[in-house]
Amino acid sequence: MTPLLREIRRNRLLWLLALVPVVLSAQILKPEAHTLLFVLSIMAIVPLATLLSLATESVAAKTGDILGGLLNATLGNLTELLIALAALRAGQYVLVKASIAGAIVTNALFMLGVSFLIGGLNHHIQEYNRNNARLQAGLLFVATVAILIPSVVAEADAVSTKAAFAQTLSMGLSVLLIATYGLGLVFSLKTHSELFAGSDHVDVGTLQWPIGLALTTLAGVTVLVAFVSEVFVESVQQAAAALGISSAFVGFIIVALVGGAAEMVAALSAAHKDRLDLSVGIALGSASQIALFVAPVLVLVSYVIGPTPMNLQFWPGAVAMMLISTMTASLVTNTGRSAWFIGVLVVTVYGIFAMALYLLPPRV
Amino acid sequence: MTPLLREIRRNRLLWLLALVPVVLSAQILKPEAHTLLFVLSIMAIVPLATLLSLATESVAAKTGDILGGLLNATLGNLTELLIALAALRAGQYVLVKASIAGAIVTNALFMLGVSFLIGGLNHHIQEYNRNNARLQAGLLFVATVAILIPSVVAEADAVSTKAAFAQTLSMGLSVLLIATYGLGLVFSLKTHSELFAGSDHVDVGTLQWPIGLALTTLAGVTVLVAFVSEVFVESVQQAAAALGISSAFVGFIIVALVGGAAEMVAALSAAHKDRLDLSVGIALGSASQIALFVAPVLVLVSYVIGPTPMNLQFWPGAVAMMLISTMTASLVTNTGRSAWFIGVLVVTVYGIFAMALYLLPPRV
Amino acid sequence: MTPLLREIRRNRLLWLLALVPVVLSAQILKPEAHTLLFVLSIMAIVPLATLLSLATESVAAKTGDILGGLLNATLGNLTELLIALAALRAGQYVLVKASIAGAIVTNALFMLGVSFLIGGLNHHIQEYNRNNARLQAGLLFVATVAILIPSVVAEADAVSTKAAFAQTLSMGLSVLLIATYGLGLVFSLKTHSELFAGSDHVDVGTLQWPIGLALTTLAGVTVLVAFVSEVFVESVQQAAAALGISSAFVGFIIVALVGGAAEMVAALSAAHKDRLDLSVGIALGSASQIALFVAPVLVLVSYVIGPTPMNLQFWPGAVAMMLISTMTASLVTNTGRSAWFIGVLVVTVYGIFAMALYLLPPRV
Repeated sequence: MTPLLREIRRNRLLWLLALVPVVLSAQILKPEAHTLLFVLSIMAIVPLATLLSLATESVAAKTGDILGGLLNATLGNLTELLIALAALRAGQYVLVKASIAGAIVTNALFMLGVSFLIGGLNHHIQEYNRNNARLQAGLLFVATVAILIPSVVAEADAVSTKAAFAQTLSMGLSVLLIATYGLGLVFSLKTHSELFAGSDHVDVGTLQWPIGLALTTLAGVTVLVAFVSEVFVESVQQAAAALGISSAFVGFIIVALVGGAAEMVAALSAAHKDRLDLSVGIALGSASQIALFVAPVLVLVSYVIGPTPMNLQFWPGAVAMMLISTMTASLVTNTGRSAWFIGVLVVTVYGIFAMALYLLPPRV
Repeated sequence: MTPLLREIRRNRLLWLLALVPVVLSAQILKPEAHTLLFVLSIMAIVPLATLLSLATESVAAKTGDILGGLLNATLGNLTELLIALAALRAGQYVLVKASIAGAIVTNALFMLGVSFLIGGLNHHIQEYNRNNARLQAGLLFVATVAILIPSVVAEADAVSTKAAFAQTLSMGLSVLLIATYGLGLVFSLKTHSELFAGSDHVDVGTLQWPIGLALTTLAGVTVLVAFVSEVFVESVQQAAAALGISSAFVGFIIVALVGGAAEMVAALSAAHKDRLDLSVGIALGSASQIALFVAPVLVLVSYVIGPTPMNLQFWPGAVAMMLISTMTASLVTNTGRSAWFIGVLVVTVYGIFAMALYLLPPRV
Repeated sequence: MTPLLREIRRNRLLWLLALVPVVLSAQILKPEAHTLLFVLSIMAIVPLATLLSLATESVAAKTGDILGGLLNATLGNLTELLIALAALRAGQYVLVKASIAGAIVTNALFMLGVSFLIGGLNHHIQEYNRNNARLQAGLLFVATVAILIPSVVAEADAVSTKAAFAQTLSMGLSVLLIATYGLGLVFSLKTHSELFAGSDHVDVGTLQWPIGLALTTLAGVTVLVAFVSEVFVESVQQAAAALGISSAFVGFIIVALVGGAAEMVAALSAAHKDRLDLSVGIALGSASQIALFVAPVLVLVSYVIGPTPMNLQFWPGAVAMMLISTMTASLVTNTGRSAWFIGVLVVTVYGIFAMALYLLPPRV
């Protein structure tokens, strides 16, 4: 336990862990205080996500390159997955989809842009290995096409047949995306790993935990995140209405920033240390993982745990934002060089999205 | 005749030529056996397309660089043109447009992607001259804009004026595209030919035929393809219904794969021999030729042979697929380097399209 | 006054200045002769725009690098701004927006494409500093996203709430765009100016005027352009109807070519002298200035001088054209090399737009 306690003493963000019992008790004692529960659950998820991320990395570091990469690639966005699963079980598909799209957009724009900005304010010009950025942007592009095509192709069709068509197609596309993601791992971890040197995720952790502690933390924190996510999902709708925030903004921006807080910290601190390879790898790798792994897994899992199966059809605004994010990430990482203004451009695109979602009338 | 017979003995694909008389007799004897005629005509077109392609190349090789390039550039997609002409005469504009869009998408994604895949499975990293890829992608981009703009601009307009507007505009755009294509030939064959060294089409043929034989084959096989295409076009609708395949899938995928079989074989064998310049040139060159030459010629010819003039307005799903294909081709050929996973990405995009079209309810 | 008179004697375009008093008198004597006033005002604006541009450059040259760059960046499109202000005061928001979108498209495609074409006809291959092109294309991309997102996000929403949403969002986005533009100036003029060497605007003028003359010309000509723009805006609607030209074509193509005539001359003459840095800088810099400075300023100013506030929502066709122009500019300037056919491709995209707008039925 010592490394865990030492980490908690060192990292002030983890002090928020004290809120975890508070939010769980509040849920039992005052289940109707939606706004309070909403704020508490958000603040409790952040330190849990940080712990999850540290534990995953410690396990990954112990298991060697390939298996470690695989672990990071599947558990790297565990928080987002757990929140989405809670929403899925509650049948809140709009929230599930908003949080997926929001996580992709937030990682590919906000995390990437702020990394460029922080890096650029400290270094005149930064260079990084663009092979990884290209790979992740390519994966993201494929996922965006998979999400775009069903709506476009179905457009001309009668409404009655749409649902069945979208459902079968979503199943097929989910399998295709997971397979593509898997092949991408084979490519980057095995057959062509030499191209991706310098962008590996593993050595971020300041200290490596013993494997037993890491596994226990992983299991325990997963359970806690699952509980807190449940509280969050139950309170979010009414809390947003009470606070006058559109639920689109909550799903896209707030959930995404909360779920990705841990990666955010890692990416920004790497950018500050002129390790932009790592920042770009975390930001775009996380985005493509959500698009090609988390989202398809949710579709497949919805057959088992959801009230009805979920499909891959997104709100047109979300599709546009994912497409623009992919294009932006692809354009700015094209050269493998960065300066502060690149960060401004990318963050501005995110700001445009956030502003539009914030001003959107609440009922949408 | 000897070289022709030798080629037939050597190339097993050509043994399918035996089906040509079969399909033509079947059409006379059993004109109502649509599914049989459909399958037979598909299988008969493949060897004819291969012969056409060999004959075109032999003629091109005899006539020197510029004229040869010109011949390849105009006759290179003769099979696609003949199938589309048969559909045009029958007034089946939906099939004509689906086969055009499908040929563009199939060449720019499937042929390119499988070339990268086959090349990459045999070679760790492949490099190729990206000037030609850039040129062809640029041409494709212009053609996609020409196909996209009429629908976008007409959107806000009243329905009654749409038809006349679309018709006049399609005429003008067709002339513009053919002119642009012609200038592209001047650029790549004449003024800046040194930039495109290594991507020329001509020396693929294993043996060069005498000019007389080549011309006779060209003429004779053209007539046969025209006849078989007629059978194909007449049977396709009912056969698709009987087989439970959507006609969108038939037009986009099956016709495109059949019409492009010969180029496909040439592109893949070049990729296998690490001559990726050639593969990329065939795949993208063929796509841009269909977009900037075959399609506009069909619009102009429709004034003469069609029941009513055809326009350049495509189904929105087809426009989206062409746009995505162009972007994909442009993104992946950007660096002039390739590995197997690039092929996977490109083929996956094609797979997404094929899956959506396959699952589309038949009546659309 | 001597340098001004000498310039007028030297530059035949300026002889059209004689039309300025003619058009102003005609407006008083024959206010109903719309077609005549339309033609006269167009022909009078061209020399005035040229003078404005010369005066701005002379002032900029005297004030040193940073301030001069700033002046160019704010007054560089003064003609476009004055025409749009006249239309704004008349409440002709459709014309304001068409002229903004048209100016972006015309600068990013026509001016850029003709520069490549003229340069390429005189030089086999031209190289230029692509940093500036990348920066301007990035700025344009952000502006296009800002213009695209409101329509996409609002789509699903009820009509009643749309207007208020679009209005507030347009205000916010305008402030965001102007801030981004300002940061772009800090980046290119101050923190990273060494990246943009060779693309500065200032030394085009053949002779530098004394500062007093330059300032007087700037002030006087601004007033004249404002007057003539008034005449133009009042006559354009009826004149277009009388000449059978769609008002979309007038706004997009004619106003944009007239307003940008001076920059056009500068860009083309630089291309001819193999100074493509300068041509690309003028074309794309002008496009991004209109998108991130002129358009947002008009939105903000509309609160003060317009009958009702103007928003940033454009006709979908205009959005598509701006998006395609940005992509085209970004794709072709990617390599920093050019040949004549690149110019043909870019001009063809413009030709497609012009053809579609010209054929559009007049009432739209």
